[in-house]
Amino acid sequence: MSPNTATAIAHPNIAFIKYWGNRDQTLRLPENGSISMNLEELTTRTRITFDQAFSSDIFDLNGLRQSGPALQRVVTHLNVIRGIRGIATRAHVMSENNFPIGAGIASSASAFAALTVAAVNAMGLEMSEKDLSRLARRGSGSACRSIPTGFTEWYRGNSDMDSFAVSIAKPNHWDLVDCIAVVAAAHKKTGSSEGHKIASSSLFQAVRVADADRRIDRCRDALLARDFDALAEIIEEDSNMMHTVMMTSRPALFYWEPATIEIMKAVQTWRKTGIPAAYTIDAGPNVHIFCESKALENVKHRLASIPGVKEVLVAHPGSGAKIV
Amino acid sequence: MSPNTATAIAHPNIAFIKYWGNRDQTLRLPENGSISMNLEELTTRTRITFDQAFSSDIFDLNGLRQSGPALQRVVTHLNVIRGIRGIATRAHVMSENNFPIGAGIASSASAFAALTVAAVNAMGLEMSEKDLSRLARRGSGSACRSIPTGFTEWYRGNSDMDSFAVSIAKPNHWDLVDCIAVVAAAHKKTGSSEGHKIASSSLFQAVRVADADRRIDRCRDALLARDFDALAEIIEEDSNMMHTVMMTSRPALFYWEPATIEIMKAVQTWRKTGIPAAYTIDAGPNVHIFCESKALENVKHRLASIPGVKEVLVAHPGSGAKIV
Repeated sequence: MSPNTATAIAHPNIAFIKYWGNRDQTLRLPENGSISMNLEELTTRTRITFDQAFSSDIFDLNGLRQSGPALQRVVTHLNVIRGIRGIATRAHVMSENNFPIGAGIASSASAFAALTVAAVNAMGLEMSEKDLSRLARRGSGSACRSIPTGFTEWYRGNSDMDSFAVSIAKPNHWDLVDCIAVVAAAHKKTGSSEGHKIASSSLFQAVRVADADRRIDRCRDALLARDFDALAEIIEEDSNMMHTVMMTSRPALFYWEPATIEIMKAVQTWRKTGIPAAYTIDAGPNVHIFCESKALENVKHRLASIPGVKEVLVAHPGSGAKIV
Repeated sequence: MSPNTATAIAHPNIAFIKYWGNRDQTLRLPENGSISMNLEELTTRTRITFDQAFSSDIFDLNGLRQSGPALQRVVTHLNVIRGIRGIATRAHVMSENNFPIGAGIASSASAFAALTVAAVNAMGLEMSEKDLSRLARRGSGSACRSIPTGFTEWYRGNSDMDSFAVSIAKPNHWDLVDCIAVVAAAHKKTGSSEGHKIASSSLFQAVRVADADRRIDRCRDALLARDFDALAEIIEEDSNMMHTVMMTSRPALFYWEPATIEIMKAVQTWRKTGIPAAYTIDAGPNVHIFCESKALENVKHRLASIPGVKEVLVAHPGSGAKIV
């Protein structure tokens, strides 16, 4: 008899080479491959219980009962997993994040990675890491990168079958640190799912996508060689390309806030003076500043002194999603 | 006997559809056509005197004797004009701007428009507006747009012969006002001439250029129809496209400062509440906010309250370059 309850943890990830735009919205097949790092200190913990007694799915996030689109997205994902197993049993999902809500740290990657691993386990299914990654991708594209450990690459693939992420280096491969400068945001952001849908409305998106393999190769090489300068150059270039595609989409999406620009310029100045630091920015105003651990205290101190930086979170390379 | 001295005035212009990138750096033949408005209240006044007694060209800018690249650029332009006349007489050029130096208002357009008109007149040459525009273009590309009056369009052209600007509407065609929000800049900007040279290093530049005729047509139509909403949409789109090309060039050029983003977002919010205002940004951090004159006091007041705005200059549609 299979267990009907399980708990999993997963970490969010920050992309070095970004995912922006789908060629299939439902299957979340990305327009281009991507590379990211899991963030160890930030964790989503999700417990799921399947019970024939439930008449509908229940989803509690950080202790709050969810409804509407948040609940619907979980139900939709559970339906995909239930479809594999051929059951209709409803579930109670309890998910907790240890990182501040509303700080603009994207939580959908860790949420759907943890949910996928917990649900598959609770249903008694045996699945390879590859298939877990494929499945997590259906819930939130970047969730597929939170399944394997450390630094991961998501293959664009040709179909649902071969679009998944693999680990390209373990967490201890390189003592990189992500300093997340949390920025005061005056405006509510457009969600990533919504953004992906209008990515192709930018005239620049096709060019960004066509050039992606070059950036992926350069990033993977820099990562494997632990070449900080090469990594810095390619992640900043890739981040700039994604944000400029956003700014030229219709409607135009501006995730940057004044402090975002301030930090980007500061980091570039620091690097010119020999400090190994580089920025990348996801679909929000916060800036992720990568540095080698020897520069951590210096970078944290400098970031904290920039007006508009509310707090600085620190994260090291993280492990993959797992049952606990 | 031809006069050997003349004084001309010209106004800088602000582009609605931007010029960024040359296909011929020496002739300053642009990669795409552009549209702009002369700025009446901002004026460059240039007096030139040719005298056989001078052993070299002298250039005074705002009362300060110039040397190095600033002088060399004037000498190079005078050599082009002297070449037409077939003379080698040296000149003394005295140029004054009535707008604050270092406020980041590009002065090369008005400078080379005024210099061209003054020098041609002082040499006793008769030249059509078209030929003056072609000639001014050689000194600074956007100077060709400061030769005709009001709202002007610079034809991309196929060669030096047909790349020049014409007036597409007189200054009184539309009571538009340009509120120039002068922004504190922490970093010295890269000059436009230098920027034009690396425009093609952005993967997005070719797309921006290929789409330019569409934007020009839309902008000209909006201008001629006095359709503010249509003008707002196309000038913001065009400005965003130029700046994102800059940000993705190698090296990446970031002209925006924190206050630049603040103003861009504010203007978009204002327009949603019915205030006819739209932004455009040249190769610098200052933001030009266009509004209809009925909204001028409201827009000025709102701009002045944004942190980081040092001052707000106001300019109406301006006349072309002329002898005074």
